[in-house]
Amino acid sequence: MNYPNGIKKIEKKENSLLKNYKNRGMNLEKMLNDTNTYYITQEKAYIYKKPTPIKLVKVDYKNKKIEEAYFEKPSTTDYNGIYKGKYIDFEAKETNNIKSFPLSNIHDHQIKHMQNIVKEKGICFLIVRFTKLNKIYLLMASDLFYYIKNNKSSTIPLTYFEEKGYLIKEKYIPSIDYLEIIDSIGGLYEKN
Amino acid sequence: MNYPNGIKKIEKKENSLLKNYKNRGMNLEKMLNDTNTYYITQEKAYIYKKPTPIKLVKVDYKNKKIEEAYFEKPSTTDYNGIYKGKYIDFEAKETNNIKSFPLSNIHDHQIKHMQNIVKEKGICFLIVRFTKLNKIYLLMASDLFYYIKNNKSSTIPLTYFEEKGYLIKEKYIPSIDYLEIIDSIGGLYEKN
Repeated sequence: MNYPNGIKKIEKKENSLLKNYKNRGMNLEKMLNDTNTYYITQEKAYIYKKPTPIKLVKVDYKNKKIEEAYFEKPSTTDYNGIYKGKYIDFEAKETNNIKSFPLSNIHDHQIKHMQNIVKEKGICFLIVRFTKLNKIYLLMASDLFYYIKNNKSSTIPLTYFEEKGYLIKEKYIPSIDYLEIIDSIGGLYEKN
Repeated sequence: MNYPNGIKKIEKKENSLLKNYKNRGMNLEKMLNDTNTYYITQEKAYIYKKPTPIKLVKVDYKNKKIEEAYFEKPSTTDYNGIYKGKYIDFEAKETNNIKSFPLSNIHDHQIKHMQNIVKEKGICFLIVRFTKLNKIYLLMASDLFYYIKNNKSSTIPLTYFEEKGYLIKEKYIPSIDYLEIIDSIGGLYEKN
């Protein structure tokens, strides 16, 4: 009687190993870059991660070498581009928390930028990966603003992502097919 | 009889001095950044210059200091954003040449990127400043592709900019009002 259960357990473990292997060492940025590269090769969308802004202090121009520089806070979101003629703009974050997403991960000027984009009728959202839960959610910017406006909490509970967000199921290629979500809620977006 | 002419000449000189003073020390990038900032404050458009991509070699993470890094070639254009719900994408270049613009200023993958954007129905163009002539032209990407396809020359003559491009008259604020040009040819663009 224990044997089938044992087998079942082993199978589960193997699946879990396989799942881990697939994205082993892959962080959200790498997965999104791979996804965006896939979209480009499929001529589906042209979305890129912006380089991190850097403040140059000392440059050896003769050898084209940067000798002293510092990372700067980005004033906009990390990703933008075009899909079906529409302007796409989003921020992506990972958290090790299992119950909530700390809003301190997004700067005020990034929120302001997202508000501008929504007002200008761009498609704007947030992608959050709860690393320890192995779950990735897409939350439309309008739902992010709604939460911030109506809650004084500095974190967004996981339950809010479950309720208002869209779970992105990891695939092999592309690993984070977020445009599938955008397509599925396309009509909904147009109404706003 | 010479006097009025003399006065006229002095006035001309003063105007010219004023004009030079206005943008003294300003390069195209600075002028475009100021223009984009103006558009943002006016809530007209949200267009930003992407940071230059950099390859990090040595980073002192404790002090958040980059100790060795190198500039990388950008794979896309320098500027993108949203205007009236539309995706905007452009490259901006300066040249000291007075008769032509060397195509070597734009990398092949940037041309490819611009082709992708046009195919995806984004608004895509090139801004070229002939510094010594103090003239700035906007050339729609479709006209850039037409030239490249039909000419074996490695330079685009100034006459082509005069014929197919749009002269952007420098103003005080915003100094390079390129969206005025986009508005004026808006209907034209829709037909493509």
